[in-house]
Amino acid sequence: MEFQIVQAFFMLGFVAMAAGALWFFMERNDLKPELRPVATYATVIAFVAAILYYVMKDVVQFPLGEIGVEAIRNTVELRYIDWLITTPLLLIEFGIIVALAGAAKKGLITRIVIADLIMIVTGYLGETSEPGAPGTVVLFVISSLAWFYIIYEIFRIDISNGPAHAQRAVKIMRLFVVIGWAIYPIATAIEQFLQIGGADIALAVSIAACIYVVADVVNKVGFGIVAIQAAKVSSGIHE
Amino acid sequence: MEFQIVQAFFMLGFVAMAAGALWFFMERNDLKPELRPVATYATVIAFVAAILYYVMKDVVQFPLGEIGVEAIRNTVELRYIDWLITTPLLLIEFGIIVALAGAAKKGLITRIVIADLIMIVTGYLGETSEPGAPGTVVLFVISSLAWFYIIYEIFRIDISNGPAHAQRAVKIMRLFVVIGWAIYPIATAIEQFLQIGGADIALAVSIAACIYVVADVVNKVGFGIVAIQAAKVSSGIHE
Ligand SMILES: CC1=C(/C=C/C(C)=C/C=C/C(C)=C/C=O)C(C)(C)CCC1
Ligand SMILES: CC1=C(/C=C/C(C)=C/C=C/C(C)=C/C=O)C(C)(C)CCC1
Repeated sequence: MEFQIVQAFFMLGFVAMAAGALWFFMERNDLKPELRPVATYATVIAFVAAILYYVMKDVVQFPLGEIGVEAIRNTVELRYIDWLITTPLLLIEFGIIVALAGAAKKGLITRIVIADLIMIVTGYLGETSEPGAPGTVVLFVISSLAWFYIIYEIFRIDISNGPAHAQRAVKIMRLFVVIGWAIYPIATAIEQFLQIGGADIALAVSIAACIYVVADVVNKVGFGIVAIQAAKVSSGIHE
Repeated sequence: MEFQIVQAFFMLGFVAMAAGALWFFMERNDLKPELRPVATYATVIAFVAAILYYVMKDVVQFPLGEIGVEAIRNTVELRYIDWLITTPLLLIEFGIIVALAGAAKKGLITRIVIADLIMIVTGYLGETSEPGAPGTVVLFVISSLAWFYIIYEIFRIDISNGPAHAQRAVKIMRLFVVIGWAIYPIATAIEQFLQIGGADIALAVSIAACIYVVADVVNKVGFGIVAIQAAKVSSGIHE
């Protein structure tokens, strides 16, 4: 059963997200009432991912099914449902920390959330159309431009007047959006190139699936921990 | 498998409602005890919808079933069970915000809830009888008149003496009832006309199903966010 490890990774994703959701839920009440939304967002994001990983592990028939690469491919819809809901929420969560750093700017979050939705929808359309076709390439280019726009906007924010801990949090969270988020287009690109080249892609799809799980945990749970840490300091709790 | 996206939309509806329910549940305790019912209603509404979407996604055999348009049609009962329970609760939730705006009027909520029940019951009877038959048309007309009555009543409310944030919330929530709710009769009307015209309606039913999901999320989760936001400000929490 060569897909055993990939199947187990989906289970890992499920427990990691469930653990994250419970964690953020418990920490929530220690924050000042005005800052609790940080934990609300983090909890909801991990909870949504937990539900979707729960279904994905069934789709790949964890723990006992014998599957082929098709089963892993069938998780694509679930992954995009996750991203459609959670990536806007991640950006809104980021917006609260930006406000904490004294740099809230009218319309910024709205603009990057719209770009984010464009990124996800065009990414999905690209991923489900013919590999290498001109239309597919155009869709991926639009998706990537939308992501670059988000990066451009969040690096333009002037946080130099905020409290040190909030500045630090914003800087770390920016890196998540650049480096942590980059994992997804890179994995998708590699998969697409292998498909166009006619390679046996079972291995590539499997490796990509495992990488997505790790990236998801980092970008949701890791991101949430950084945000809540900053909210804690602002709430007068020093760890 | 051409119905893949429609099937995925039902899953999307499920997670979105589950996320909304958890969200409102968490925010509830931050409100003043007198205002917590706003969050109670919002939570219960999203929770009921989550349960029904959970079943609907099974009815359309998400994630792996091969279905025809019939499967999507089989969600009609579930949709109306949802509406029968949640639309009265939405109007009661609205009533609390109206009271916050200092415009509670005896009997108003009772009257619009009764109109709402008439709207849903006649709508269901119309939807399940022969397309284009005179009786069907009469049922849809009664259903629509009931909705117009609700709109008439909620626009007659004089909120001019309430606090600004509550006035704003009432104004936004009115728009949900006019524009957000209009999506349902419009989608139903289009579906009926296509059926009468003998068109191949698989596509129309599919598109309508997706639109219903988006409308439901907006009208339940979006509506709840506006209401809770107003209740938060009234509770002295400024974000
Ligand atoms: C640019 C680009 C993409 C970007 C995806 C991203 C950036 C996803 C982020 C997901 C996150 C952060 C998940 C939650 O934890 C796609 C859609 C793969 C398609 C190819 C182009
Ligand atoms: C007027 C009219 C209708 C109205 C339906 C409405 C207004 C439904 C609202 C549902 C909501 C708000 C759901 C919860 O989120 C029907 C029954 C389609 C039948 C045709 C006439």
